[in-house]
Amino acid sequence: MEGTLNVRTDLALEAREDIKPKKGEIDGVIMSVIPENNLIKVTFVEIQNERGSSLMKKPCGKYYTVEASDIQYGNDEYKEEVSKVIHKYLRELSYASTGMKNPRVLVVGLGNREVTPDSVGPNAVDMLEISENIMGVAPGVLAQTGMETARIVKGIAAENRPDLVIAVDALAARSTKRLNTTIQLSNTGIHPGSGVGNHRWGITEENIGVPIIAIGVPTVVDAPTIISDTLDNILSELQPDSDIKKLNNDNKYELIKKLIMPEIAQMFVTPKDIDATAKILGLIIANAINMTFDVNNTAG
Amino acid sequence: MEGTLNVRTDLALEAREDIKPKKGEIDGVIMSVIPENNLIKVTFVEIQNERGSSLMKKPCGKYYTVEASDIQYGNDEYKEEVSKVIHKYLRELSYASTGMKNPRVLVVGLGNREVTPDSVGPNAVDMLEISENIMGVAPGVLAQTGMETARIVKGIAAENRPDLVIAVDALAARSTKRLNTTIQLSNTGIHPGSGVGNHRWGITEENIGVPIIAIGVPTVVDAPTIISDTLDNILSELQPDSDIKKLNNDNKYELIKKLIMPEIAQMFVTPKDIDATAKILGLIIANAINMTFDVNNTAG
Amino acid sequence: MEGTLNVRTDLALEAREDIKPKKGEIDGVIMSVIPENNLIKVTFVEIQNERGSSLMKKPCGKYYTVEASDIQYGNDEYKEEVSKVIHKYLRELSYASTGMKNPRVLVVGLGNREVTPDSVGPNAVDMLEISENIMGVAPGVLAQTGMETARIVKGIAAENRPDLVIAVDALAARSTKRLNTTIQLSNTGIHPGSGVGNHRWGITEENIGVPIIAIGVPTVVDAPTIISDTLDNILSELQPDSDIKKLNNDNKYELIKKLIMPEIAQMFVTPKDIDATAKILGLIIANAINMTFDVNNTAG
Amino acid sequence: MEGTLNVRTDLALEAREDIKPKKGEIDGVIMSVIPENNLIKVTFVEIQNERGSSLMKKPCGKYYTVEASDIQYGNDEYKEEVSKVIHKYLRELSYASTGMKNPRVLVVGLGNREVTPDSVGPNAVDMLEISENIMGVAPGVLAQTGMETARIVKGIAAENRPDLVIAVDALAARSTKRLNTTIQLSNTGIHPGSGVGNHRWGITEENIGVPIIAIGVPTVVDAPTIISDTLDNILSELQPDSDIKKLNNDNKYELIKKLIMPEIAQMFVTPKDIDATAKILGLIIANAINMTFDVNNTAG
Repeated sequence: MEGTLNVRTDLALEAREDIKPKKGEIDGVIMSVIPENNLIKVTFVEIQNERGSSLMKKPCGKYYTVEASDIQYGNDEYKEEVSKVIHKYLRELSYASTGMKNPRVLVVGLGNREVTPDSVGPNAVDMLEISENIMGVAPGVLAQTGMETARIVKGIAAENRPDLVIAVDALAARSTKRLNTTIQLSNTGIHPGSGVGNHRWGITEENIGVPIIAIGVPTVVDAPTIISDTLDNILSELQPDSDIKKLNNDNKYELIKKLIMPEIAQMFVTPKDIDATAKILGLIIANAINMTFDVNNTAG
Repeated sequence: MEGTLNVRTDLALEAREDIKPKKGEIDGVIMSVIPENNLIKVTFVEIQNERGSSLMKKPCGKYYTVEASDIQYGNDEYKEEVSKVIHKYLRELSYASTGMKNPRVLVVGLGNREVTPDSVGPNAVDMLEISENIMGVAPGVLAQTGMETARIVKGIAAENRPDLVIAVDALAARSTKRLNTTIQLSNTGIHPGSGVGNHRWGITEENIGVPIIAIGVPTVVDAPTIISDTLDNILSELQPDSDIKKLNNDNKYELIKKLIMPEIAQMFVTPKDIDATAKILGLIIANAINMTFDVNNTAG
Repeated sequence: MEGTLNVRTDLALEAREDIKPKKGEIDGVIMSVIPENNLIKVTFVEIQNERGSSLMKKPCGKYYTVEASDIQYGNDEYKEEVSKVIHKYLRELSYASTGMKNPRVLVVGLGNREVTPDSVGPNAVDMLEISENIMGVAPGVLAQTGMETARIVKGIAAENRPDLVIAVDALAARSTKRLNTTIQLSNTGIHPGSGVGNHRWGITEENIGVPIIAIGVPTVVDAPTIISDTLDNILSELQPDSDIKKLNNDNKYELIKKLIMPEIAQMFVTPKDIDATAKILGLIIANAINMTFDVNNTAG
Repeated sequence: MEGTLNVRTDLALEAREDIKPKKGEIDGVIMSVIPENNLIKVTFVEIQNERGSSLMKKPCGKYYTVEASDIQYGNDEYKEEVSKVIHKYLRELSYASTGMKNPRVLVVGLGNREVTPDSVGPNAVDMLEISENIMGVAPGVLAQTGMETARIVKGIAAENRPDLVIAVDALAARSTKRLNTTIQLSNTGIHPGSGVGNHRWGITEENIGVPIIAIGVPTVVDAPTIISDTLDNILSELQPDSDIKKLNNDNKYELIKKLIMPEIAQMFVTPKDIDATAKILGLIIANAINMTFDVNNTAG
């Protein structure tokens, strides 16, 4: 089935790219590029109905993707600029979700702080300016707690009654060039199977009882992805007439998933300088949240 | 009021020591030494009624104090021995609290993992063998989360339904010789004002809805305590006829609290080698919990 | 040249496996399996001359490989057993290198403690029992220090005059099944291009001025390796007559290296549970070193 | 002996304050206040000869003390301002020590990163912008390495040949109000017995072979200090005619040192919010170093 997407990506933007027609309209999916800045590109994707959701394999809702390719190498002013752009769309999603100008937020840093590419969420919580309006917690992952993270979040939210939950998480991307350069904001919550740690129970408004904004950054690609990416090059070189090349991306990815050894399927692929990057990303996101919800802040 | 105790201690054993008559019986307070081992001494204190509770300034309940003066310098066998002694009384308190042989427990590591003497609880959680029966979380302190820790625990417990909560915490002691050598187990929960971080809302069965066992280790003394301890020596030396010496401990402590500068009152006092000790204590406690609640474990 | 090996591996055992004839003798390379234990297999490789060194692409010297496939899931007794086996060969290499029964050793934990799969060396140093006989340091990697690690080690050794340097490092393996299950001891030092962090200047007796024992554990595979591993499966399935299959491993690996995108070449692949494993491996190695060089220890 | 100072302080400013005459001139000691900023006060002390050195119990040399009482609570602009003031005097001392505009520096983060108030030095190294001109290392303390830190630094410097060593360290102060608010820069190196961890072998130009600039921040007071501070208040209240009050500060401190229990003498006293402060101080110092030695930086 052409257009059906099985490639593992947490980014709506990548999901959209894999659907044909690439440029044309798809019923139920809006996509527009927002001119923001020379060095920072924002794309808005809205999945409006079941058909769009089924095509995109993502829930209905709004997705902003902030692409900032110089995050790792940019100076402090550039990072501040990225925080401001995130802040702008975070404020918009927050107001749309809560109807409040100064909601009280609970920021949840998802992921395992002991695994470098999965530490962006906990890093962001460490950098928050905790106040009456900003609460934060990094509860750890299932293997560390023995509990579904969504159940921990639900319990904490039930007792502390935030107006909004912001879940910050490391994601898996399909494309290596999006690693550590792209921040996605969405109002759809976090769904089973997403994130580096592969959540099993959704952190969604339905489960938690409070609107959720998810902020995610791809920091890993999964092993089949890099194999799939490389296969085309190899085959073009050696087997110009290969049948494999005739497969579309989805089928190729599924085939690779079936054929790789189970050990490899349990691995992740991440850049060697992930330690510095995971800290910078945590700080950029924390600053955006601080700007948005600190009642004394006048940045915005 | 002779016998009234205001000296800051989280240990029932120390509270009992400060009450006269030191040796005789007090209505409502039972105390007995359990011969356990040459190098490990266990004391049992039970506060049985309101009069005992008021005298001791501690809630009614059972307190076991494990004194193991060689924890820091002992070898692995000694540490294993301490874990086994803790395990023995933990199992007893657990069975008395839940009536179950294999309860499902939620271990909460209280305290701030970024402040060395307050990291025993989080260290213990890091060393747990997470399983179906053992859940664990180290949520951080109020300054890190913006939430009362008791509310976080309550929410997590409500959603994950353990049969028992075990709260591991660093405590303040009155006596420097108890620092890092004494582990207290009690079935009374954790009350406001106790612990290094000074909890404001109790982690008690009443608040959380599940029986609580508290495991605490003194890792700090507060500043007025060491001043009070030293004052007697100084005055004996220089002013044998000083009026201050006639004050009892409580009044002296209260006086010092009034007279010290407010900056000092906000400080803690801890040994220079606290980094290694806080890790060893976390491991000893985690091992005791693992022995007690791991259904596959046959140690006990 | 058939048999020439370009596949990236830091393990002598893997280098030997890729050379034909697999079973027969190779001039200059001795290999023997030492029956140690049902669950722990030790292989000894000695590269005796230039021809062996050139074939194996490893320096002349002795290599012990301890394969312990249950490290991650075994109980404490099993881990203790692995430490004892490492201890046995470490003592042997130490005595052969120094001629001393109680040499004073400097243990260097190579790698970046902020990158989980590269933290085995620093983790091991954290667990050492520092004494008159055991010194330890984890200096960080070039990106953290701005200095070649070998120059740091050389300077520290020159001033502190150990009889022996033990360098503990995370390695890259060729085979995913060796990840986190194999410990290699060798008396050849650490050479440029090896290790997760890719040392640029060798930590060798020639450079440092003291005999070196290297203890390494593969915790990552590089991206081309997993692609190469997977390619055979894919081609067998789809292109039974593919020319690629006729390539030997080396040529295939080199081809893949050329054809993958440069971003991917800068990535590493590691299992999702690397956090717990990197700690266990550090502890097992530290315990082996403690057993071997603690003058008060009678384990050996 | 009036004027002889035994009070434990690493700050030249405090040493000067304890000498009478407080305002008048002392032969061999220059002190001047440099008007810098409303909220940041800089004091310059120069010890010019042996008589000054003996009175001050500090080596001859230049000491700049930056007092910034709002470090913990100030905003980012304030912290930037403090970094700029440190940068100004760091550049001055650097040029005076090396005669070079762009010296290559080795920054050494002294102290134990596992003990919160002793982690300022390692925290600063973590925040450096490592480059050709800025090298950095945090080697750990004697209890972690088994080696004198000065010997480690000497060896690293001998191999890597910096033009200047900058040693960042947590200090002990005499006055609680200087804790975490004062940064001292000096060109005298770090001497035995100073710092939180009490160095035993000096990090001095004589020992290391390269000019040393020490940057220190008091993060602890020792236990006798807070007792001594409090004693006056207590005695004024209760014993207006006490003989103790007639003792000068030195004698009182020495007396207290003698009379306190040895366990207490091995403790340190630090504020409860030391975790956040130790990170902020590390960042402020790292930024000052980055401003001063980054050849691409135009800040100053």
